[in-house]
Amino acid sequence: MNACGVIVEYNPFHNGHVHHLEESRKKTEKDCLIAVMSGNFLQRGEPAIIDKWHRAEAALKTGIDIAVELPYAYAVQHADLFAKGAVLTLHALKVDTICFGSEKGEISPFLKAYEQYHKNQDLFQEELKRGLSRGLSFPEASRLAYQTINLTTNGLDLSQPNNILGFSYVKTILDFNTGIRPETIQRTKSGYHDEEIHHRIASATSIRKEIVSGQMLTEKAKETIPAATVEALNNYQKETGLWHHWELYFPYLQHVVLTRSLTELKEVHGVEEGLEYRLKKTVERSKSFQEWMEKLKTRRYTWTRLQRMFVHLLTNTKTADLKPIHQQSSVPYVRILGMTEKGRHYLNQVKREMEVPLISRIQEYEHPVLEMEERAVHSYYLAIPAEKRERFFRREIQPPVILSRTQG
Amino acid sequence: MNACGVIVEYNPFHNGHVHHLEESRKKTEKDCLIAVMSGNFLQRGEPAIIDKWHRAEAALKTGIDIAVELPYAYAVQHADLFAKGAVLTLHALKVDTICFGSEKGEISPFLKAYEQYHKNQDLFQEELKRGLSRGLSFPEASRLAYQTINLTTNGLDLSQPNNILGFSYVKTILDFNTGIRPETIQRTKSGYHDEEIHHRIASATSIRKEIVSGQMLTEKAKETIPAATVEALNNYQKETGLWHHWELYFPYLQHVVLTRSLTELKEVHGVEEGLEYRLKKTVERSKSFQEWMEKLKTRRYTWTRLQRMFVHLLTNTKTADLKPIHQQSSVPYVRILGMTEKGRHYLNQVKREMEVPLISRIQEYEHPVLEMEERAVHSYYLAIPAEKRERFFRREIQPPVILSRTQG
Repeated sequence: MNACGVIVEYNPFHNGHVHHLEESRKKTEKDCLIAVMSGNFLQRGEPAIIDKWHRAEAALKTGIDIAVELPYAYAVQHADLFAKGAVLTLHALKVDTICFGSEKGEISPFLKAYEQYHKNQDLFQEELKRGLSRGLSFPEASRLAYQTINLTTNGLDLSQPNNILGFSYVKTILDFNTGIRPETIQRTKSGYHDEEIHHRIASATSIRKEIVSGQMLTEKAKETIPAATVEALNNYQKETGLWHHWELYFPYLQHVVLTRSLTELKEVHGVEEGLEYRLKKTVERSKSFQEWMEKLKTRRYTWTRLQRMFVHLLTNTKTADLKPIHQQSSVPYVRILGMTEKGRHYLNQVKREMEVPLISRIQEYEHPVLEMEERAVHSYYLAIPAEKRERFFRREIQPPVILSRTQG
Repeated sequence: MNACGVIVEYNPFHNGHVHHLEESRKKTEKDCLIAVMSGNFLQRGEPAIIDKWHRAEAALKTGIDIAVELPYAYAVQHADLFAKGAVLTLHALKVDTICFGSEKGEISPFLKAYEQYHKNQDLFQEELKRGLSRGLSFPEASRLAYQTINLTTNGLDLSQPNNILGFSYVKTILDFNTGIRPETIQRTKSGYHDEEIHHRIASATSIRKEIVSGQMLTEKAKETIPAATVEALNNYQKETGLWHHWELYFPYLQHVVLTRSLTELKEVHGVEEGLEYRLKKTVERSKSFQEWMEKLKTRRYTWTRLQRMFVHLLTNTKTADLKPIHQQSSVPYVRILGMTEKGRHYLNQVKREMEVPLISRIQEYEHPVLEMEERAVHSYYLAIPAEKRERFFRREIQPPVILSRTQG
């Protein structure tokens, strides 16, 4: 059995994702689809609307065969680190292909771009470093560095978020000599950041916007997501009384910033270039997370960058702890969130050849990356009323989601 | 003008306290009554039911002339440190006398006890250290050390909380050669820890119990407190929507224990002898503060000791920060919470002779003790809904309570 990997967040799992899975299966003709998915916190520095277990289950019911966790240490990071964690996880699982969505759906511009990038790597890295040290955000610094080596005029529009991510995947796949074949399908029409629902296939942003503000699944929203997601969203709300969003974490963040010293704040990943002073200065006068963000935001401190910093403040994740992890050239383990019968079959086949432990329950292995995961889980569920939290904390020590129905 | 000092918590200010003030005034015949009062967190490790400003105002309206803050660094500590901070604050304010309540209301047993203690100080300290290193709580270790030097059989019952505190005051007054005259009046009948209201004069514990559980001022409770306290309690509830109690801080404490490492937890004052492991082990399974405390409590870890530890976890107060403060033989400043006309007159008179700065607004001085105070203030008000907090945070930078009515 051969496998194709997809790199996802599923916040929530919607019709666009279903389309991506169907097209990936067609294009790659692989038997098994493996999704490596962000956990409870996402790449752009947000709490997921519902937890990873519910999101994984919906996806397993609608097209994937295996869901594995993208470790927190890689999930809440800029495109290059996000890509590294995801690609190396899929590599550890011996996938043949990775198939991602892009604006044009052609892989050759990515491969050509990589060639050009590879030849000018030193210049690119130099430019990237210069940009970052000037205080530019990672996407902005990358964009300029790509410009310097003429990548942006070469048929690949690297101002599109999906293309940036896609190029990061291709870079990792080739830089690490994984032997994986990169493949891409064309994204459907809706823009990555669209704020409103216009079609049956809508952006995750617009779907979240539609349901989180009223904490209700409208008919309009239901048309954009498969039945399994409707079920997952409804169940989660029944069990917890809510869907997650930043405001629920505002008191915890205020507490952290108000009680920790400048030195302590500075140790947290993302609190850099004097942001600790800015945090202290604005914390007292903010009545909500939204208001605080607006007070903090500048051209230099983008919304995404600030949100990621807040996730790390919430989970107490330090630069010093992440550094040695990010320097590794493989992931320390692969953690299964769920699988179908077919997925289980595939795992049984590759398990013995794998070079890192394959685990599911958190207590099966000890590693700093798993400790970080545990802190992220705990922090995430603190949004739920105290009397209901225990059950969710305990989910981590229980078996993965197992669907007996064979997929597709 | 001469002054008498009293050492108080006023949680809340009740008829027993009014009685104490009246008797102190009679017994000492001083013009000015100065109360040094715990701030927002109290000696036994609890958040005060209403903040220090509202408590100070009620007391100023009903008998005291000046209210000053007992710094957090001394307030949430065992009897000896609590006494040290309070006595040295009053000493800095040049009081002639300190008058405290005791079971019998006679000062001579305290003075005789001190003589005996002084002669056997080395033996006492040795015994105390031995007890503490065996893991006994401070009151228990003190009790045994007093027993060793025969103090408990000498007319002073040192098993009574009020007598323990009183003896700590006398010790500090004499150990530091303050020249202050210690004086005592007899406490009225209600027991220090009585849980129910029986008389017009009731214990603060019983009053809190009566009103906090229902978040309502019952007629029974109103009979035990002066009009100014009724007003202060009502105003505070109107402004914030609540009276403070531990459960409101449970989510913050859970967050701290869930996201900080064992090493970080161990740095916090009171997290000792492996308590960090016990905290980690019990945190997930507790649905409330009460439940958590019950899981943590043992003979060794008394309720008070655990509560104090939780205050320090909430305010992020470290042993390493407290140590140099506790080694000083004077307080770093005196902070006015409020005063009457007479109080102001007295302060004008002594101000120039004072050896430490006299301040009121928090921004008037910089000192680690004040930084700690600020963290305590911020942590305390986090129990209030987010949209109302700012106004309370700002209270620290505003002038003290000033009553124009002349007292007495």
